[in-house]
Formats: sequence, structure tokens, C-alpha cells
Amino acid sequence: MDKITHLQIPGPTNIPDSVLRAFSRPNIKHRGEEFSELVTDVIEDLKDLFMTENEILTFPSSGSGTMESAIVNTLSPGDKVLAISQGVFSNRFGDIAEDHGVEVERLEVDWNSAVNLTKLEDRLKKDVDKTIKTILLPHNETSTAITNDLAGIREAIDNANHPALLVVDAISSMGAIELKTDEWGVDIVVASSQKGLMLSPGLSIVSISDKAWEAVKTSKLSKWYWDYESVRENIHNGRFPYTPPQTLYFGLEESLRLIKEEGLENVFKRHATLATAFRKGIRGMGLELFAADEIASNSVTSICIPEEVDAKAVINTLKEDYGIIVGGGLSKLSGKIFRVGHLGAIYNVDIIGILSGIEMTFTKLGYNINLGQGIKAAQKSLLKI
Amino acid sequence: MDKITHLQIPGPTNIPDSVLRAFSRPNIKHRGEEFSELVTDVIEDLKDLFMTENEILTFPSSGSGTMESAIVNTLSPGDKVLAISQGVFSNRFGDIAEDHGVEVERLEVDWNSAVNLTKLEDRLKKDVDKTIKTILLPHNETSTAITNDLAGIREAIDNANHPALLVVDAISSMGAIELKTDEWGVDIVVASSQKGLMLSPGLSIVSISDKAWEAVKTSKLSKWYWDYESVRENIHNGRFPYTPPQTLYFGLEESLRLIKEEGLENVFKRHATLATAFRKGIRGMGLELFAADEIASNSVTSICIPEEVDAKAVINTLKEDYGIIVGGGLSKLSGKIFRVGHLGAIYNVDIIGILSGIEMTFTKLGYNINLGQGIKAAQKSLLKI
Amino acid sequence: MDKITHLQIPGPTNIPDSVLRAFSRPNIKHRGEEFSELVTDVIEDLKDLFMTENEILTFPSSGSGTMESAIVNTLSPGDKVLAISQGVFSNRFGDIAEDHGVEVERLEVDWNSAVNLTKLEDRLKKDVDKTIKTILLPHNETSTAITNDLAGIREAIDNANHPALLVVDAISSMGAIELKTDEWGVDIVVASSQKGLMLSPGLSIVSISDKAWEAVKTSKLSKWYWDYESVRENIHNGRFPYTPPQTLYFGLEESLRLIKEEGLENVFKRHATLATAFRKGIRGMGLELFAADEIASNSVTSICIPEEVDAKAVINTLKEDYGIIVGGGLSKLSGKIFRVGHLGAIYNVDIIGILSGIEMTFTKLGYNINLGQGIKAAQKSLLKI
Amino acid sequence: MDKITHLQIPGPTNIPDSVLRAFSRPNIKHRGEEFSELVTDVIEDLKDLFMTENEILTFPSSGSGTMESAIVNTLSPGDKVLAISQGVFSNRFGDIAEDHGVEVERLEVDWNSAVNLTKLEDRLKKDVDKTIKTILLPHNETSTAITNDLAGIREAIDNANHPALLVVDAISSMGAIELKTDEWGVDIVVASSQKGLMLSPGLSIVSISDKAWEAVKTSKLSKWYWDYESVRENIHNGRFPYTPPQTLYFGLEESLRLIKEEGLENVFKRHATLATAFRKGIRGMGLELFAADEIASNSVTSICIPEEVDAKAVINTLKEDYGIIVGGGLSKLSGKIFRVGHLGAIYNVDIIGILSGIEMTFTKLGYNINLGQGIKAAQKSLLKI
Repeated sequence: MDKITHLQIPGPTNIPDSVLRAFSRPNIKHRGEEFSELVTDVIEDLKDLFMTENEILTFPSSGSGTMESAIVNTLSPGDKVLAISQGVFSNRFGDIAEDHGVEVERLEVDWNSAVNLTKLEDRLKKDVDKTIKTILLPHNETSTAITNDLAGIREAIDNANHPALLVVDAISSMGAIELKTDEWGVDIVVASSQKGLMLSPGLSIVSISDKAWEAVKTSKLSKWYWDYESVRENIHNGRFPYTPPQTLYFGLEESLRLIKEEGLENVFKRHATLATAFRKGIRGMGLELFAADEIASNSVTSICIPEEVDAKAVINTLKEDYGIIVGGGLSKLSGKIFRVGHLGAIYNVDIIGILSGIEMTFTKLGYNINLGQGIKAAQKSLLKI
Repeated sequence: MDKITHLQIPGPTNIPDSVLRAFSRPNIKHRGEEFSELVTDVIEDLKDLFMTENEILTFPSSGSGTMESAIVNTLSPGDKVLAISQGVFSNRFGDIAEDHGVEVERLEVDWNSAVNLTKLEDRLKKDVDKTIKTILLPHNETSTAITNDLAGIREAIDNANHPALLVVDAISSMGAIELKTDEWGVDIVVASSQKGLMLSPGLSIVSISDKAWEAVKTSKLSKWYWDYESVRENIHNGRFPYTPPQTLYFGLEESLRLIKEEGLENVFKRHATLATAFRKGIRGMGLELFAADEIASNSVTSICIPEEVDAKAVINTLKEDYGIIVGGGLSKLSGKIFRVGHLGAIYNVDIIGILSGIEMTFTKLGYNINLGQGIKAAQKSLLKI
Repeated sequence: MDKITHLQIPGPTNIPDSVLRAFSRPNIKHRGEEFSELVTDVIEDLKDLFMTENEILTFPSSGSGTMESAIVNTLSPGDKVLAISQGVFSNRFGDIAEDHGVEVERLEVDWNSAVNLTKLEDRLKKDVDKTIKTILLPHNETSTAITNDLAGIREAIDNANHPALLVVDAISSMGAIELKTDEWGVDIVVASSQKGLMLSPGLSIVSISDKAWEAVKTSKLSKWYWDYESVRENIHNGRFPYTPPQTLYFGLEESLRLIKEEGLENVFKRHATLATAFRKGIRGMGLELFAADEIASNSVTSICIPEEVDAKAVINTLKEDYGIIVGGGLSKLSGKIFRVGHLGAIYNVDIIGILSGIEMTFTKLGYNINLGQGIKAAQKSLLKI
Repeated sequence: MDKITHLQIPGPTNIPDSVLRAFSRPNIKHRGEEFSELVTDVIEDLKDLFMTENEILTFPSSGSGTMESAIVNTLSPGDKVLAISQGVFSNRFGDIAEDHGVEVERLEVDWNSAVNLTKLEDRLKKDVDKTIKTILLPHNETSTAITNDLAGIREAIDNANHPALLVVDAISSMGAIELKTDEWGVDIVVASSQKGLMLSPGLSIVSISDKAWEAVKTSKLSKWYWDYESVRENIHNGRFPYTPPQTLYFGLEESLRLIKEEGLENVFKRHATLATAFRKGIRGMGLELFAADEIASNSVTSICIPEEVDAKAVINTLKEDYGIIVGGGLSKLSGKIFRVGHLGAIYNVDIIGILSGIEMTFTKLGYNINLGQGIKAAQKSLLKI
């Protein structure tokens, strides 16, 4: 068995060594000055990352918890939401709402497509009474590796002159794919620590627009832990209503420093460059991508598994022989695709190494692949030749 | 300013160096075999710690989140609970229930007392229709440093022949003060990572009796993140419905190993020995304790601040001159007491060092204290002479 | 600039994360029981690694220090040694001897060759008076990336019936290339921490045969720090005559555990497999190797730089654009070769990633290379097809 | 058995957590720009610490190695040195010189005394032919816990108008006790990493005056590893003639930052304050000190063990029952004293905790000690009352 050298599921991701060191800082007083200052600085840096002037809150929870927070803080029983349904994690967003007694209308999208802007606009135009309070959708659907056009979605909503809150799950895009929260009028953005932020799981982050805060005031869904107003009151002083996950805060301070050092623009560019090279590599070796290039994600890629190849064998061989951990297909895509995360701490030769592992895996499994051709295509892409 | 050497708030606590090292392990696949085995082993060890055969679940959250989980998983709107009210954190338990539309009856207890067993028994006997579904109470009320007699409470409930669920907040006692979950029939125990378990915050743990699982079945409060059934289904395979906080799991594996190595009995004995010495030390120097010895906590001690002394000055001098961080009084005890945590990774000479810091602080602030006498008393206590 | 992801100089090498964690253990008493046991265990494991029953000593020093130790402990002023001269580090061995007043005869070897066994045998046969006390030579000459045939060298010495001590520098081979100390009758083997042992620099290790201990008794060169007898007396009790480098001992315990877990045979096989693939990769892309395959090292490879390409540009581009740090040519090979270390913590996809960086670097510098062909050759080698 | 919380041998010492984190940085290229800059910065900071404009060199070795370096770089066979003999480590300095064929005259000093300045001056005055090339002495003799008056020693040498080099072992004083290298004309100062510098062992440091460099030019003792000129040539470019111990350099960068942050003056003051309190504490409990106050060290204290008490029992009880590791008496002081280090990362309450451990240990062993009185005396000393 080969040593695991590449954790390429679409999160948790590989952690930079300086962040790992930050994790081993001892506890400090969570209501003391030192921690307050750290929180205040981190929140400011998160605003840059979220490209927003909106309020930023954090929770000791996984990303799914923050998805729930967006529901219970802005809605009331019987309210209606339009939930984009285009994969496992966007479906989850709708499910959470349903579990809280919200009426959920699913806008079905083919799993190999992004949100159709016209269809969305049409639906909203039909909602003449504006009964849809909120639109729930993923920036990047992790299970299909497809990214939605948020600028276009904002335009569609505006064209329909619809007042619904736009609530976006950016868990697998934040820090990897540009998300202009303010420019695109995203009312709530939820993200978490273990993806583009290069930390381990357990800290989730949410930005909340003034319009969303208005909804918070009238929301009647019950909550305590997720209560935005309670967290807001405290976080303004660098505190929290309950004990915050310090270790992840220590790591976050360092990962935000790394992002700032590289430059946010450069971080996005790096992800785009690597993702492009990766996709060209996959095609170059003779495999098919699940998503068309125009909608393909820059943080994760979904690769079709040829019928004659066993999905489990692919995943196991990649792990056992080449030390590369990838994700399988979820739900109805199980056995049909495998997914490779390429977000966070990932660089040129990592992409080549992963492609090579895939080429060798398929070769080993007896599938006729163009050995070396995928890599050549990726190299040409990286070299821009 | 002195270097901070002692973090003596009642949590987060000092972290052993081997646990800090465990925190710096890289991410692994949260749905892979390696992590599943770790989870399975940890859950087994947690059962020993909780002294229970009940199901154990964990959440990526602070301890307060698990308090909420106990409410939303076992109750329905309009259900009635009896919430012991004897300090800030027991009050919080009632508040959380209220925020979820549960009818909360507060059983008021003087803040310098433990739950009066007769009074509790009487109240339950009066509840002839058994409308009280659940009793919420703290094992150890952190804000007053008072520990309730859980064995006695179980007896009181049994004497009243009352079927209410017994739900206990053990956040500041678990791993420090013995809690015989099964023997005492505690239906739900909630705990968290940053206290007796010597980790940083962000992981919470809950044990659930069969009787509580029955309540889960009929509960109609809305939930998604906290849903016990969903977590149970997954954790049986060493998995979770959402991404678990790996870093804390890596640390937990090590802190449970440390506890096992010392022996759980010895861990409890150490806390008792140190707490006794600490209280004798405080009295020996001429200060008064807020809680009587019979109910005083073994994980945290509350010390009365003489009227002529400024509480903030005490806390600041302890920090600035002696590197010791303590907690202030909360709510109506603000300015009247200060609280010293002595749980988790704490040993003989730590207790002496802290007492010395207190003696020197009061001396420095001009309060006439018996310099050296507190320490002498503590030393005699430790020496059993 | 790309993030540095591959430190591929021929040492210091990449450190496994579990070893990095071991480095952050606090100091312990260097003359206490805990450390004594650790030393004793480590020494036993080192014997397995060195494939020897000989005494093993360690020094707080870089590897060069242990080279000096071998000289000053076994020789006297005016003694004669035969020093193989085939590169920078074998020359250094002779230089150290000269600096201590030993008469050094250099056996010159072309830098692109290994030791000629016949030539060595002939020279020794001519030494009828047996004036040559010691033969100094490298197992693996790091500056040329050439490995000597130690079994053959032992045979040559035996054929000449020569009693000289065989002293071997295994700094860049230990833990990467098999060295049968006892079977091949190597009297002194010197190694250090930062290469195949995957640690940082500062700990050196030496094995000493009974025959060498005889020489120690009569040696008249002055020494104190390097005194083998003084270290031997102490190390038998797990102690040292002066303070040992604990941090590296903590790391060594872990790196030896990793080697044992993989299996020493497998470690050697992995290095051989990767080195073969790497060389095929280099040739596949159209570059030339400095050393013929039969003598090429399995821990480092020297690659010829075509005349029309600037060596510095190669090294800088590899670093700046691809995050790969390699070594340049030393001394008379400066500008003519570059050297890529592939020892210690290195695995399949690392080799591909490094080859890809080299392919892209030469392409970027305008040198016509067979893009993708080197990698294809390496992949076929790894796949054994 | 109590957890070890205090490593109070006179080195290795307790390591600050931020330094431990620095130890877990991965290797970098030891001949690359990043490391060169780090070395250059560290050397500058070391000059401040050594209070000198002299050249500073470092070695991958324990402190004893640097003692040897001072001998072999400045002397020739048959040269005469005057070695102060006042304990185990000053004797070692003379022994090293003897092992290298230097003529060593020992200036015997009672082990409970410091160097007698008049006696030294007289001896030097008698050396009319100036045959004494070098004076070897400890700033702080670790085995007796006595500090020499270096300013006075310089004056004695000047009074005798003697040209001998002044070579000082500052291993257990550097970073703890002020040493004005330039003002006091100390030609060579040797120090190491694991004491006042709060690192682990393995890095040694030496400062060399212009006058000493003159001696280097004419020295005929053989050397290679310790060769000052070779190290100097390289270190001017932030490099070394052989691989440097990076891990300790990463740690040193951080420990020097901590010293700078506290202020060197404050560091010395802290050591003096704590040492004074500690000595008053020892006397206050009724034990005797081995060294008079005027010559007592501020980095380590030697405490007399009453005849009726077993030294081993003291050391074992301190460890087993109170988690405190101390040093025993060495050589002829074995069984007669024990030694407590209080240098590096040590603060107010640590001193009290250690004193308390000592009080309780003697009480437990049945020796009639004034329980609490030692601590009271120390507290009064810290409070300056």
C-alpha cells in the first residue's frame, strides 16, 4: 500500500503545515482580550474573503449546521422557499427547510446542468404574489461538481423584480471560486472551515445582508444555538454566546494570512488554472467529464466511469497503489462518477501527480487509456502552449 | 506582565502536550475506514467514561448545542419540563427549552445551595398527572461551583414514582467528578470537549438511555442538525450525517488514552484531593468560600471577594502579576465572587502555585491575608497530616 | 511563485507529519529512566537498519562530524589511509584525515564511475607491508549520484588479503539503499539523520566492528567529543557523556517505527522502484543521465544539463514555477548537472510530479523536450509494462 | 505517580509552547535563500544576547563540543592554559585541553567558592614570561551553582597586565545571567541551546574576539569539524560547511523573539528575582544552601541535604509525588546536595510550586521542616515586603 499523500476528496482538504502548527496552540480565555482581538481581526479578513460589507458570524458546527441556521433565522412556519434541486447537497438544503415546517418548492435541475437562468426567471415572474420568501441554492454543487452562475441568477431575480432572499451554500466554493457577495446581492452566504479555507472541520461561517437581518426580525422558527441576533451581539465584542472552537480560530488566522499573502485574486486564478489543466488532462487520457466545461467547478471535478470499469476498484486502486483519496459518486451517481477535489492547498505538480495516479489506475484495471496523454494535455494547459 | 502559565477558568482548560500534538494531525477522509475505526474506538472509551451502556453520540458543537439537542429531540411543543434554576448555566437550560416552545417550570434553588432533595420529591409527588415530561438540571453548576447529588436526585424521583426523563448537564463535571449514568438512571447526559476532557472546544457528547430514545420517537420539535436518529444511524458505522470535527477526535483519542492510563477512579480521586486542598488553602489564608464543603464542586471553586476589595483588580492582578487566568462572578454574582477551575490537566504543585498567586494578589491589593497560611493548610491537606 | 511542495535535494529530505509532531515533544531529563529506555530501544532498531550486530553510537552532530570521528578514533599521526576520490564528499573524507596529520593516498576514480574493483584489489596487493591502515569510501557519492558495490569491494579486499579497516560513508544511502554491514564486513559505517531517516539534521550515527574497536585502543589522534570509548561506556546505560539532541531522538523513534511498519526490505524496494522509474522518465523526456544505470544511485539522480541550457535557470524555474527544490552540480560539475534526491518519504506520484516539473521547466526554457514522454516512460516503469 | 510538570534540572529546561511549534516546521534547503536569511537574522540577535560585536558562530553539537572547539582553534600542542577547577564542568574544560596535548595548570578553587580574584591576579603576575596562553573558566559552574565575577576577573587579568585569552563557558548562564562579553573583554564565550535559550539540545554557539581570531591563525591543534575559519567563511553568507540543525534554528528564531519581546534586561531581572525568592524560600523552610548568597547562581541553586535524609529519596519523591525533576549532586557532591534549575521559561508561581514540592517532600520523608515558611519567605521576597 502506498502512503497517503493526496487527500483529494472535495473536503476536508490538505492542510498547510503552518496551519497544522497553529492547531497545536494551547487554549486561552475565550472571553479575554487576546481572543477578542483575534476574533475581530479574523472577522475583518473574512469580509475580504466573502467580498462583502455584510455582517459575518461564525458557529462551532459543520457547514450543514450553518445551512440550518439560515433557515431557522429567516423563516417562519408555513413560509415558502424555492429550493434548487440539482444534487445531494442542494437537496439537503431543501430537506432542512422541510424538517422545520417550511413549504419547499423544488426547482428541479438536471444533475449534469447548472441552474437554467430563464427557467428561474420565469418561475419567479409567475410568483405574482411574491409568496416565495427565499431562494436556496448552491454556488457549487459538490456532488456533481457544477458551479452556478450567481451573477446571472441575481440578474434573473432582478428581471423578475422578485424580493426573495438569495441564500447561497458556498461551502465548497469559498476561497476557491470567486463569490462577489455584495455585487451579486447574495443575502446569506454559508461556508465552512475544511475546504478552501484549508482547515479541519468544525467552524462554519455565514454572511448576512441588511435585507436578511430584516427577515431575522420577523422569523418565528424556534432556535437558540443558531440565533443570529445573539451571536451578533456578542461577536461585536469579539465574544460568543457559548464557547467558540479556538483551535480552528487559531488555524483560521493563519489560513487567512496565507490567502492574503498569495492574494485573493491569485488564489482564484490558481484554482481556475489547475481545474482547467485537470479537465484537459482527464479528457486527454480518454475519459469523459460529467459536467460541461462552461459549468464545471474549479474546486472539484466529476469524472465519468466507463461502464466496463468498477467504480470501487478505481477508488481503491487510487488509494492503495497511488496514495490518492478521491470521492465516489453520491446517490444516483453512485458507481457512475468519481470526484476529485482540487481546492485549498493544491499546486501545479499535485495536479500532475493526481492525473498520473488516475492514468495508472485505469491502465492497471485493464482499461485502455492514453497513458501519458492526459498529463501531456495538462502540462500544455499549465504551460499555456 | 507575567507569562500566562495557568488557565484556571472552569474551561477551556489546560491541554496536555500530547493532545496538542494530536491536534496537528492532517485531515483524513471522514468517510474512510481509518476514521471509522477511530470513531468506533472512541465511542467505546466514552462509554467507560460516562459509566454507561447507553448509546453515545457526538456533535460538532459547543456544549450548549448539545443542551439544545436534548430538548429538541425528546420534547414536543407545549410539553412541560421542570428546570432546576440555581445559576447561569442551569437557567440557560430552561431558556433553551422556552425558546423552543416548551413550558418551563423553574424549581428555584438558592444560588449557594444544591438542589433540595425533599423539595424536589415533594414537587414531583404533587404532579399527580405526570405532566412534567423532563427534569433539566446541572450535575455541576459552573457559575456557583456547586455540585448536585445525582444519586439523591434519582432517589427523590423514584420516591415520587415519577416517570420524567432525567436530563443532566455534565459539561463541567465529566472526567472530573464521578457520574454513574446507568446506576443513577440519568437518561440524557450532555458533556463537551474543553473541560475535564482536556481538549479545545467544539466537540460535544451526549449519552441517551433507552427510555430517552422512546421520547425521541414521539418528539415533535423540529430539528435537523441535532437529530439523534440521524446521527445514531451513521455513528454505528463510525460515520456522521455531516463532516465531523476530526482534529478534536484526534485529540479525544489521546485524552481518553491519558485518562485510561491514569485510571478513571484515580482521575476522580485526584480532582477530589486537589479540590479539598484548594478549599482548605482558601480558608487558611482567611478568605471565605461561596459554597459549603458538602456541596462544593471538585472541578471549580467559587471564592467570596471581601467587600473592601475590587473584583476586577483581583482578576487583573492574578493575570498580570502571576500569570493565572480565573473566572469572575456571573450575573448576580458579578463582583462578589471569583471562580477558579481546577479540572482536567492539573496536579499537586499547580494547586499550590494558584493559591500562592491568590495570597500574593490580595496582599498586593492591601487586603490583610495570612500570607503562607493558605498554602500551609493546602500542603497539610495534600500530605494528609 | 509556486508553493514549495517538494524538497528534492539529496537531503535534508521531506519529513513525515508524524515525525514533525514528535519533534514538538517537550524536553525530558536526559539522564532519567524514560530517556534511557528510548535510547536503548532506538539503538536496537538502528542495528536492524544497519544490518549489524556491531556497536552503534550516536553523536549530536552533522554527518561530517561522524566522518571525523571515524578518523580520530582509529588512526594515529602518520598512519596511512587509502581514500577513494570520486566526488566532493569522498574527497572531504580524505581531507578530514589530512587535517588530522594522517597520510592520505587518494585512489582517483572518474567522477562518472564507481570504484573499479580490480584497481582497488591491485593497489592493495601492492601494499605488501600492509601500511594502509584504513580504506575510506562512500557507499553512495552524493555529488555524483553513484553507488559503489560494497560487496565487491569487500571481495577485492579479501582477494588482496589486506587487513585494512573498511570505513564507509553511508550518509546518503542509509535507509534507502541496502547496506549489509556485517555480511560485507564494513568496519565503520557513518550515517546521519536528515536523509533516509527522514529527520532534520543534527544527529549522526556510527556502527563500529570489533576490529575497529581494536584500532580505537591504539589510536593516538587527539579527541574528546568524538571519543568512541567514552560514548560507548555511557550509551550502554542509555546515557551520553554530554547532552544528547532529544528532539531528534523523539523523531528517530517515530521514523524507525515507520520504517519497521513498512518493512526494511520494502523500503529498499520502494527506493529502487522509484529511482528506476525516475531514470527512465529522465531518459524518456530526452535528457541524459550523468551515471550509467549499473552504478546509478537509488537515492539521488544526477542529470546532465544540455549545453544550450543555463543550470541556474533550470534550478530557479523548478523552484519558482513548480515548487520543487533540487540540488545543483558541485565543484567541477557545477553548471553541468543538477541533482534530484528521491530518498526518505517519497512515493509514486511524487516521482511523476517531479518529472513533470522537469519536463515543464525545460519546455519553458525553450529546450525541445518530449513533453509527456518522460512521464509515460516512468509510468510504464511503475506499472511494469 | 504525579504528572511531570516541572523539569528543573539545570538544563535541558522547559520549552515554551511557541518554540515547540517552531520545532515542527518541515525541512527547507539549507543552502537556499530562506534559510540564509534566517541564519543572518538569528546571528544578529545572538550578538545582542551575547552583548558583543564579536563574530558569532554556531555548531551542530552539544555545548561540550563548543568547549572543545575553543581549545582546538586557539592553541597548539604544548601550549599552557590556566584552567579554573571549581566543579565538574570547569574540570571538564581542563580535561578537554589535556586530551589535546595542551599543558593544563589547574587553579584549584574550593567547590563552594567562586574564583578568588586576588589569587588569580597573583598567579598571573607570577607568569612573567606570559607562558599562560589562555584562561579557561565557567561563568556559572553548573555542578555547584556558583557564578564567577567576570568583571572582577577581567580586572584581575588587567591588573596583572597579562595577555592571556579569557575563554568562558557560559552554557548555564547565557540568557539567564548578564554577561557583558565586550565590556568585560571575554575573548571566547561558549553557550548552548537547551538552557536559557529554552530549546532542546544540539545547537551550540560561540563568540570570538579579534584577539582570539589572532590565536586561531597560529593554532596548530588539528581540527576539521570545529574549524572556526571554515565556519566563519560560510556563515557570512548564512551558510555552513556542513548541514546545520534546522529544527533548532527554527526554534532559536522564536526563542530569541520571546527574549526580545520581554527585553533582555527584564529577562535577567526575572532570573535574579526568582533566584532570590527561591533561596529565601529554601532558607525559610530550614534547609541550608551550598553557596553563599554573594556567589550563588541565578540560574540554578544547590541545596544541602541534611545528613539524616537520603538524597535519592528526595529526588524520587519530588518526581513521583510532585512531578518535579531536579538534579542530584555530581562527583564529590553526590548525595550531599541536590540542584534545582530555575532558568529559561520560569515564572513566579513556578518558583512557589517547586518550593512547595520541596517542603512536602522533606515533610513526607520525616524531616522536620517549617511547612509553609519557605513559601512565605519566597512570597515576601517576590512581593518585596
